[in-house]
Amino acid sequence: MPRHAHPKGPTAMPTPPPPLAGTTTGPTALRPLIDTVLTALHDGAHRRDGPLPAGGPDAVTPRIRTATHPLIPDHGTGPHHALRTLVTALTEGAADPADPLCTAHLHTPPLALATAADLAASALNPSMDSWDQAPAASALEADTTAALAAEIYPHQPTPDALITTGGTEANQLALLLARERNGPVRTICATTAHHSITRATWLLGLPAPVVIPAPTGVMDLAALDEALTRLHSPHRALLVTATAGTTDTGRIDPLADIADLCATHGAELHIDAAYGGPLLFSPTHRGKLHGLDRAHSVTLDLHKLGWQPAPASILAVPHRHHLDPLHHQAPYLNADDDTEAGLPDLLGRSLRTTRRPDALKIAVTLQALGRTGIADLVDRTLTTAHHLADLIAETPTLDLYDRPTISTVLFRPTDADDTTVATIRRTLLTRGQAVLGRAHTRDRLWLKATLLNPHTTPDHLHTLLDLVNQLANDLAEGNTPR
Amino acid sequence: MPRHAHPKGPTAMPTPPPPLAGTTTGPTALRPLIDTVLTALHDGAHRRDGPLPAGGPDAVTPRIRTATHPLIPDHGTGPHHALRTLVTALTEGAADPADPLCTAHLHTPPLALATAADLAASALNPSMDSWDQAPAASALEADTTAALAAEIYPHQPTPDALITTGGTEANQLALLLARERNGPVRTICATTAHHSITRATWLLGLPAPVVIPAPTGVMDLAALDEALTRLHSPHRALLVTATAGTTDTGRIDPLADIADLCATHGAELHIDAAYGGPLLFSPTHRGKLHGLDRAHSVTLDLHKLGWQPAPASILAVPHRHHLDPLHHQAPYLNADDDTEAGLPDLLGRSLRTTRRPDALKIAVTLQALGRTGIADLVDRTLTTAHHLADLIAETPTLDLYDRPTISTVLFRPTDADDTTVATIRRTLLTRGQAVLGRAHTRDRLWLKATLLNPHTTPDHLHTLLDLVNQLANDLAEGNTPR
Repeated sequence: MPRHAHPKGPTAMPTPPPPLAGTTTGPTALRPLIDTVLTALHDGAHRRDGPLPAGGPDAVTPRIRTATHPLIPDHGTGPHHALRTLVTALTEGAADPADPLCTAHLHTPPLALATAADLAASALNPSMDSWDQAPAASALEADTTAALAAEIYPHQPTPDALITTGGTEANQLALLLARERNGPVRTICATTAHHSITRATWLLGLPAPVVIPAPTGVMDLAALDEALTRLHSPHRALLVTATAGTTDTGRIDPLADIADLCATHGAELHIDAAYGGPLLFSPTHRGKLHGLDRAHSVTLDLHKLGWQPAPASILAVPHRHHLDPLHHQAPYLNADDDTEAGLPDLLGRSLRTTRRPDALKIAVTLQALGRTGIADLVDRTLTTAHHLADLIAETPTLDLYDRPTISTVLFRPTDADDTTVATIRRTLLTRGQAVLGRAHTRDRLWLKATLLNPHTTPDHLHTLLDLVNQLANDLAEGNTPR
Repeated sequence: MPRHAHPKGPTAMPTPPPPLAGTTTGPTALRPLIDTVLTALHDGAHRRDGPLPAGGPDAVTPRIRTATHPLIPDHGTGPHHALRTLVTALTEGAADPADPLCTAHLHTPPLALATAADLAASALNPSMDSWDQAPAASALEADTTAALAAEIYPHQPTPDALITTGGTEANQLALLLARERNGPVRTICATTAHHSITRATWLLGLPAPVVIPAPTGVMDLAALDEALTRLHSPHRALLVTATAGTTDTGRIDPLADIADLCATHGAELHIDAAYGGPLLFSPTHRGKLHGLDRAHSVTLDLHKLGWQPAPASILAVPHRHHLDPLHHQAPYLNADDDTEAGLPDLLGRSLRTTRRPDALKIAVTLQALGRTGIADLVDRTLTTAHHLADLIAETPTLDLYDRPTISTVLFRPTDADDTTVATIRRTLLTRGQAVLGRAHTRDRLWLKATLLNPHTTPDHLHTLLDLVNQLANDLAEGNTPR
């Protein structure tokens, strides 16, 4: 029967539903779709031809809106058309962290191998809230968190860690655990602490943090000592949160000295090492984290110096039982008789219920690269940051804030005012030439380069500084940027 | 110069770092790695040969542990070896929701097209906390959340929604918004509400919920009326949380009647439609959600009846300004002068900071399938659930709990006691034959099939029931399962 004579209407064979990603047939269905995605990723990057699209929101927003209109059509455009259109538009409109001139934030360029691993997480879709949704994934997560916790607490018999959606949730959980141990704990942090600390106290109904000055970019020890003395009370527990890798300057608080003060005053200590934590993998740099293992809890992100697609974050604790306050029961997920029969009870491993297996990409990366491979990436990145600082120091038209501790380099054109510095950042952004961050410290606004790309070369750094110098020069001569 | 004569030692060219996923070169690096992943997904599924691996944790855990030991080697095994080993082991040890006999939980089999889209999110790694990390992605997210919010609140001029990590976080945010509007609000929910409601009150430092009975599987209106009357006070705001799609039985609370009672008593209303919300896309079934748009906030998950890899969840509100309490400032991400210069301020769109663009897979799916395509998947799934209920009703050895409202079907072997029901579930699980859930209601334990797979056929349903019948029979004859 010729194809056009196939019966139509109510007696026609119904169209089968679109294919699923799982079982033995999923990979076959995925191959052509992924080919479309990879082609779109390439074509979008080719069209963008730089670290981000030019034109700012006024140009980018209408372009993606055109590509997606209407967002919910009555009749679908089919998988290949939708994938090609949206992925191309998203890529063309991306600030791509793999471009060496995209260097504003702790916004990492993910490794291809970690990205490939994450595909398997999406395809299998295990959910980490019960064993019968994630038999192997729950064992993999347990081993991965234990291994990472042992990096942080090598001298503890039962260190453990939870996987979180980011440093922000890890910090929230740290404060929650302190609240559950101690009641309405008072948090003490430096002005340089991550904004999530204050936000967590608000979320958890805790008093706002006592904020300690950080005139040199790290928590002032004398001021901390004074605060701990002043706030000491048998009726109120204190939690100091220190930072290993501040957002603005990448500095590391004096962890061992802070731990000493906490011990003297009977305060607890949380360390937000979201940025700096992975220095542990580097024999060259891990000494900078001396004292980390004295914290009651540690935040560490592998979607920063770990080159994972976001999120890949943990909260580690020295003793497994410190996580007990998160224990939770929902009989459909962890009924007593199932737990007694040997099914692992996973619900206390997160405040979330449904939960993606972020452990997979992390475990694949750790296995593929090993300790030495991760250390090499860390060392390269820190070397690049030092090289940028050298170049700035050698450039008479630029001021360097300080030598980098990790990979953050602050600088500014000599004699430029703060408005000019902010304009330089926004102009490079709007022109699509470079993504630089900003930080206000020592009463001045600085341009911030957060180096995370291990492929960045000296040539890229020269290009970046040339762009800033040229624009600063144009602005000084009264040329209006556009 | 022959290859073996290439100079070695300190003068050798250093090994370049492993490739990144981004820019124009990323797709080329990804292709062979993804080929390894797809092959491993296939091989692992082939080895598993069923909905989950046999043997329970005692068999599964050692196997994945062997595949991953040591988890952090000193020297890496290379990307292909690590991907092949871990993805194969994870797949072999998966409870695969794409297998029609994996039907315990609200654990969806993701569509291949949504899984492919999610790869682009991992590769580009936009982070949704600032425009300069996600120029196009932030516009795409804004349009996607607005479009989904308009599905829920079609008669409001400025509905809006936030993307969350799941129904649990969406419920937390709903309670947080109520707390910020009203102070320490008292929550009222039914015994059938999701466990995340109680957990959210604990997290947020709110009083524990007042719990209303649900003798018929849905919130009892007379009891709610009584509670609202009893708890009414000018000094304390009340928030009723209703459920559209309960975890245990998939029932939908009488939303319009509950909204009426809330209006009468001046209480606010949150509706957890994590499961049932997507019925909105189906002209056949959307009537079941009558009253949904009268809620102050609505939770809706697309990683359930939306066939997305987890997570893909929203919290919707009728008026954009209802989200204002989440506004937050961190000068490195949303400085005043940048916001004034037109850069969108995204930090108030979540409690998280770094954040993956879950909007991409959602938008691709909506475009590819359209409203009619999603409706077709919803309708098929509900039809399959009704068919299962028919089969159970026709089987004299099985008791049906009730006709399904959405796609949850509870049943149990006639005359089996609760211990036997629990044993049947665990035995099918341990044998690797089927993943069924459990629910305790009407003073009995039931087997729970949560149907979410649009490819499930009547043959699969017969197989599932045959497995249960056979095992119940064996147990009744005194045969010990293993």
